[in-house]
Amino acid sequence: MADRLDVDEVLAELPSWRAHPGDRPAIERKFVFSDFNAAFGFMTRVALLADKVDHHPEWFNVYNRVEVVLTTHDAGGVTQRDVAMARFMDEAAAAMGAKA
Amino acid sequence: MADRLDVDEVLAELPSWRAHPGDRPAIERKFVFSDFNAAFGFMTRVALLADKVDHHPEWFNVYNRVEVVLTTHDAGGVTQRDVAMARFMDEAAAAMGAKA
Repeated sequence: MADRLDVDEVLAELPSWRAHPGDRPAIERKFVFSDFNAAFGFMTRVALLADKVDHHPEWFNVYNRVEVVLTTHDAGGVTQRDVAMARFMDEAAAAMGAKA
Repeated sequence: MADRLDVDEVLAELPSWRAHPGDRPAIERKFVFSDFNAAFGFMTRVALLADKVDHHPEWFNVYNRVEVVLTTHDAGGVTQRDVAMARFMDEAAAAMGAKA
């Protein structure tokens, strides 16, 4: 099992992410794309990675928006697996022209 | 623009759906699949239709669960476009062995 990390230290390295307001340690980010096609294309890239590494986001989508929450359930907090997923999402979104 | 339908009448024809608890007319359903791969496969089938007909769900996914809300924003309520999308989702989910 991955070690739980301090959320503040994690967020210091992920400037586009913030602490999820809730009763469990998690990080969140909202992505905005040009349209649904771009948003779901982003989700598909992330899904392929998620399935491969067996680590899955909680996410909400409507039209061009994707709201993501990352946490590692079996560690009860944020781990390196979430950091790796967040970095991949940041890069994939930037490559796909995310507006936010 | 599609005509707004009575939600109760819509739900009478969609037994797996219920009224969305909120301040706007909408219908919702929760789908449960065997795993993330099946859940995202379902979402991909729906996304292809959504992009084609330019009518998009609001949906949340974590692992094997997909929670969907359907409404037609520019009609301010539920329309035949939502009914068609709900029917497609029901069929796609059943074909993919959804557990709920």
